[in-house]
Amino acid sequence: MASKAEGTALEQVRERLAEIADLEAAGGLLGWDRETMMPADGAEPRGEVLATLDKLAHERQSDPRLRELLAAAGGEASAGRDAAIVRVATRDADRATRIPPELVVESARATAAALPAWAAARETNDFERFRPHLERQVELARDVAACFPEAEQPYDALLDVYEPGATAASVREVFARLSDGLVPLVAEIAERPIPAGLPAPLAEAGQRVLALEMARCIGFDEARWRLDDAVHPFQQSVSRTDIRVTARWDEHDLSGVYSVLHEVGHGLYESGVSPDLDRTTLGAGVSLGIHESQSRMWENQVGRSAAFWEHWLPRAQELLPSLGGLGVAEITRAVNVVQPTLIRVEADEATYALHVILRFELEIALLDGTLAPGDVPAAWNERITALLGIEVPDDAHGCLQDIHWASGLLGYFPTYALGNIVSGQLWQAASTALGDLDAALAAGDCAPLRDWLREHVHQYGRTVEPADLLRRATGSDLDPRPLLDYLRAKYTALYGL
Amino acid sequence: MASKAEGTALEQVRERLAEIADLEAAGGLLGWDRETMMPADGAEPRGEVLATLDKLAHERQSDPRLRELLAAAGGEASAGRDAAIVRVATRDADRATRIPPELVVESARATAAALPAWAAARETNDFERFRPHLERQVELARDVAACFPEAEQPYDALLDVYEPGATAASVREVFARLSDGLVPLVAEIAERPIPAGLPAPLAEAGQRVLALEMARCIGFDEARWRLDDAVHPFQQSVSRTDIRVTARWDEHDLSGVYSVLHEVGHGLYESGVSPDLDRTTLGAGVSLGIHESQSRMWENQVGRSAAFWEHWLPRAQELLPSLGGLGVAEITRAVNVVQPTLIRVEADEATYALHVILRFELEIALLDGTLAPGDVPAAWNERITALLGIEVPDDAHGCLQDIHWASGLLGYFPTYALGNIVSGQLWQAASTALGDLDAALAAGDCAPLRDWLREHVHQYGRTVEPADLLRRATGSDLDPRPLLDYLRAKYTALYGL
Repeated sequence: MASKAEGTALEQVRERLAEIADLEAAGGLLGWDRETMMPADGAEPRGEVLATLDKLAHERQSDPRLRELLAAAGGEASAGRDAAIVRVATRDADRATRIPPELVVESARATAAALPAWAAARETNDFERFRPHLERQVELARDVAACFPEAEQPYDALLDVYEPGATAASVREVFARLSDGLVPLVAEIAERPIPAGLPAPLAEAGQRVLALEMARCIGFDEARWRLDDAVHPFQQSVSRTDIRVTARWDEHDLSGVYSVLHEVGHGLYESGVSPDLDRTTLGAGVSLGIHESQSRMWENQVGRSAAFWEHWLPRAQELLPSLGGLGVAEITRAVNVVQPTLIRVEADEATYALHVILRFELEIALLDGTLAPGDVPAAWNERITALLGIEVPDDAHGCLQDIHWASGLLGYFPTYALGNIVSGQLWQAASTALGDLDAALAAGDCAPLRDWLREHVHQYGRTVEPADLLRRATGSDLDPRPLLDYLRAKYTALYGL
Repeated sequence: MASKAEGTALEQVRERLAEIADLEAAGGLLGWDRETMMPADGAEPRGEVLATLDKLAHERQSDPRLRELLAAAGGEASAGRDAAIVRVATRDADRATRIPPELVVESARATAAALPAWAAARETNDFERFRPHLERQVELARDVAACFPEAEQPYDALLDVYEPGATAASVREVFARLSDGLVPLVAEIAERPIPAGLPAPLAEAGQRVLALEMARCIGFDEARWRLDDAVHPFQQSVSRTDIRVTARWDEHDLSGVYSVLHEVGHGLYESGVSPDLDRTTLGAGVSLGIHESQSRMWENQVGRSAAFWEHWLPRAQELLPSLGGLGVAEITRAVNVVQPTLIRVEADEATYALHVILRFELEIALLDGTLAPGDVPAAWNERITALLGIEVPDDAHGCLQDIHWASGLLGYFPTYALGNIVSGQLWQAASTALGDLDAALAAGDCAPLRDWLREHVHQYGRTVEPADLLRRATGSDLDPRPLLDYLRAKYTALYGL
């Protein structure tokens, strides 16, 4: 062993990436456990362990020797998977190197202080308690952005972490087109009577069985997946063959079932990456937007379709007797109620993106200094009324509702709506390629769509840039038109627009 | 931050130990998850992540800079807790440095190959399939021992990992006295009629509730503990305030309840260490023997006593109706059946240590070369008959039953019986100090014993060497007499010896 050759630069790169990937996998499991299993008093030491794992991964990402090896490996791997690994790992290393460690520590500290202040501010509906922390987070976000002076505007540097290649300008343009389509659509629907909701109670036990059966149909497999409860549902892949999804249940509606479909969509992406990318740091979703397109598609395009319910309604009625009297048209209407509401995470498919657009606009203004943190509540309330036609009664139901800014996550929100847009494009492309997707869903067959997504999206992991992936899969750049067409067609059928 | 002073040597030592402790905590959680939560196909990548965490911890333990800092810190901390930290961390670092990394890797490899071979050998009752792997593990154990040439005999170097300060000679001497007391005791009991077992079925659900209520009485607290199922019950502390115990249930007996009492005893030790030792690598049990004394005491001295059942029987009868007709004397007899059996993990309190003594003798002989691995089956079978008076029908019920040798764990077995011995000594000392322990237990009060153990054992973590701890708590060196007295008194009452 002492005489072991060190291997080629590429081999050494892969060894180092494997170590980083392992540290990230450990952190992923510890994070999952914290939200699902950990006893309450384990929180403080858990935070320390996670910080250490983060620090060790960051040290490795920013190790100058890794940069040298990547440069050498670039010559060895001129094409294919290896070249992609070198390209993406070089970008990761560059990013890790350019943000100074003291800024990383300072951000972690600011977040640790901001989170309880935000929670207290939300609970007491007192924005002023959160304001200084928001100011600090905006300041730190500017400092991070300043590490990337080549970005056309500071926001681009933040966005690029979550959505590689996207820019504020490109997102603004596509969001403008999206909002131009959504606002009148929502207004038109608002003129129609609101469909009846679901007859409660929808027993948790029955919903669990139903959700698991649907999940298995999509691709959930007990040998590689597990489902647990969490206050805020999420997906965590510990490895390609160890996928954890979580759900929260409510007996008044089917939100538990839909949270499962959503998270299973995320999990399907992670589980469908090519095994060649295991332990390379590229064996994961390429961007949050593409990731969200996968969860949204199974939740919405599939899970809220009449075709899907054509197959599942009889089984749902066995498990949830209160659904007994419903037909497919009625349940489909009931799970597609469109109604402007105050809370993003409870918003329907048509209004959801408008909540995101609002946050994106405010973030841009905060970053470029045209909006002071203290003026966020007024700006928020004004934009909600403009976009959704409703009034914000207090900040707890307004600008204090989300955890993101307290967590220092600026530049993250847009990816949610990008996910909606991409789901529309991929759904259209899959329908064109596969013919009648509805017929397969009505027959309880999720395999054609799953296999198409695996072939055109999942397998690549982070090797193909989001824009290229989209172009290859759909023949088009980012475009809100397919989503708008799909929504208009759906609501025309349901609401008789 | 860049200008941050590095701190004293002791501060730097503590920072480095915190990182090692965090890596160990992460590994602990990943191991717990593997046995309780992980989907089957997660096993292979999980092994890689655990190996990486191990490797990183080992690199840190064996970093020459840590040795230098420890040497410098030794001067700063001349007494008290800090001196203990320097002393123990120096020993850990020494051990990590002296076993060459290639031997660590080679051992991991040998174990990876041995485990499936052992499982197959046990399943097919074919010792020959396991023999070459046992040979390799013995060889590697000798190589490890050779890294510590100052040890009086090779076995001492192995034992010292699990039981610091113990030697083969001291263990042999104490085991001889133990076996001199146990063999005639078991023979005497064998002449009496075997008491009736428990009336089945003992529903799992009822056992769970009962076990949890008992556990809470001992010290289990949902804010810091959790209980899950596992094929092989174990305890894992992720931190002092995040203790995980596991159990396996069998409706034919109360082994599930007793596995909970046992593991809660381990957990109580880890949770009772002084908070000053958090993230120092000393915030854990000092040796496997002392650890096992804690689990055995709650399982046996407490859980199998008439006093304990005096309090718990009415509740047990509510939860487990088949126990309805039993009196305290009857249930106490039923959970104290002594009967020589083939399988160590199913053995009773009187015969258990004899199984361990047998393994210790064979390990010594394997290590010093007086026993060839190929001759293990014959030696095993002969000793079982000598110690327990029964015949071994096949190797699956003989020398292939335990996973330890396949895992490369030589020198580990004795700690089980040392735990029994220590539990006897501590029980006697606590009884002397606290007066009538039985009266407290009969009143459902576990606090006096728990608090005594916390004060005399738990709080010290690894700061006080096992022999010193024992001497301070009991006034005596390792001595099997209190255990033998306790067993004889108990079985005299139960069996009318």
